[in-house]
Amino acid sequence: MLTFVGLGLYDERSITIEGRDVLNKADRVFAEFYTSKLAGATTADVEAFHGVDIEVRDREGTERDPDPILDAARGSDAAFLVAGDPMISTTHVDLRLRAVDRGIDTQVVHGTTAQTAASSLTGLQNYRFGKATTLPFAYGSDNVPESVLTTIANNRERGLHTLCYLDIDAEREAYMSVDDAARRLAGALDSTGTADAVSDVSDTTDADGDGAGVDFDADGNTLAVAIARAGSSAPVIRADRLSALAEDDFGEPLHLLVIPGDLHYAEAETLRTLAGAPTDLLPS
Amino acid sequence: MLTFVGLGLYDERSITIEGRDVLNKADRVFAEFYTSKLAGATTADVEAFHGVDIEVRDREGTERDPDPILDAARGSDAAFLVAGDPMISTTHVDLRLRAVDRGIDTQVVHGTTAQTAASSLTGLQNYRFGKATTLPFAYGSDNVPESVLTTIANNRERGLHTLCYLDIDAEREAYMSVDDAARRLAGALDSTGTADAVSDVSDTTDADGDGAGVDFDADGNTLAVAIARAGSSAPVIRADRLSALAEDDFGEPLHLLVIPGDLHYAEAETLRTLAGAPTDLLPS
Repeated sequence: MLTFVGLGLYDERSITIEGRDVLNKADRVFAEFYTSKLAGATTADVEAFHGVDIEVRDREGTERDPDPILDAARGSDAAFLVAGDPMISTTHVDLRLRAVDRGIDTQVVHGTTAQTAASSLTGLQNYRFGKATTLPFAYGSDNVPESVLTTIANNRERGLHTLCYLDIDAEREAYMSVDDAARRLAGALDSTGTADAVSDVSDTTDADGDGAGVDFDADGNTLAVAIARAGSSAPVIRADRLSALAEDDFGEPLHLLVIPGDLHYAEAETLRTLAGAPTDLLPS
Repeated sequence: MLTFVGLGLYDERSITIEGRDVLNKADRVFAEFYTSKLAGATTADVEAFHGVDIEVRDREGTERDPDPILDAARGSDAAFLVAGDPMISTTHVDLRLRAVDRGIDTQVVHGTTAQTAASSLTGLQNYRFGKATTLPFAYGSDNVPESVLTTIANNRERGLHTLCYLDIDAEREAYMSVDDAARRLAGALDSTGTADAVSDVSDTTDADGDGAGVDFDADGNTLAVAIARAGSSAPVIRADRLSALAEDDFGEPLHLLVIPGDLHYAEAETLRTLAGAPTDLLPS
């Protein structure tokens, strides 16, 4: 049996009881931390807390040479640990299909995710989020890919919120900060070229006709919500203009950014009360 | 301190270790099961497993008379348990805002959710889901609200997957089955009136021009994925035509339905291998 176990959002206690039981029962425990990693715990922390030995595999050792993992899962119990939910990345789906192909039973133990936390911590309703997107590292450039802006614009056209994952290079221990992301997005929406790319849809942002739509603003006035350390005991949530978020420091990773669409009354109230959203950016 | 704790997806072991620790430390433990409930455990199961007494509140006792909960959270530790993630419903957000308003510290311990599981169990990538929707009970009618069809059509226009939550009436212990949902959706897409409602966008379903778009089919030929008992140790995942899913029996709740948009190669391969999707419905 090969069981994929989600470690959840933040540290060694973010795993479910069911996941912990799988860990304790497994003959061998593998993990990969190249697609994502726990911000609040090291591998040693997880090993010590749960009393298990973890064999960490790099990308090469998971994708090119999966045989040791598959062999361990044949006839005995192997667990494969991943931060968040285990099947978010196609690399794990691929490993699961290989196992099924060899007649090995597989199972998934779910973990808590940034997607859920982004909705839960901000009060923005989960069924009012559109497609999510990822802001990638620009490595020297401040460009924002057109696909990111298009996703945000398409969602806003329908009044929907957008969750922006911020790039992680887990192998280099590099995490994009939300102030950096806010600065780049404010800049992209301000630049003529990129603003053109979304102008077709931003003209109809208030397509649902409820009057709550807000067009992109060329001065970084767009309301956004910064989330830092979701899943920890002290996450930081702050709603403000992109230009203001760009000036703040949100501390340790991981960070997330949400660009709200239309706000219902309860959502606006939550952003004001829990995230300090400026009243002039909220529907009256 | 008032801590909102997500019980997670399925039973008494779906809670995180962090959530369990909050339960054990709390002076009083409240719960509500009117917005959602654990399909695989009773309140007594949760109490026995975790060694706590749970005071279950109905809607009236949470929304109209929250004072006992708020009083318990002032000066001592109260936990408020909810199936899934605790902030999915606005009713909990409202309770949190009332607590903040009274100067009571609040905290959220996240739980695993259907949203994550729908992506994880099907292999459909989480960033390729659009807005989610809920198919409500029709109580005698087989109608599907136009808003549900519009959401599905809008997502498909962009090649995005749609997660359809199926209505729960937790107080009556009524759960919509996925075969029922598939039958209703197949019928709605077949009926002239509702098909008209989505025809504008279904004409441009393949808007991304990759050739993988599939228009709604008037014979219930639309590919859909049924999910039963997500979060349990033996969830059922089956991909087939809506008309075929309508003829099947998926057993105990909870059920979910996913209407895929365009399928990437790895997604199609996963639906074929893990969910038995008919090859003629997959992109070649």
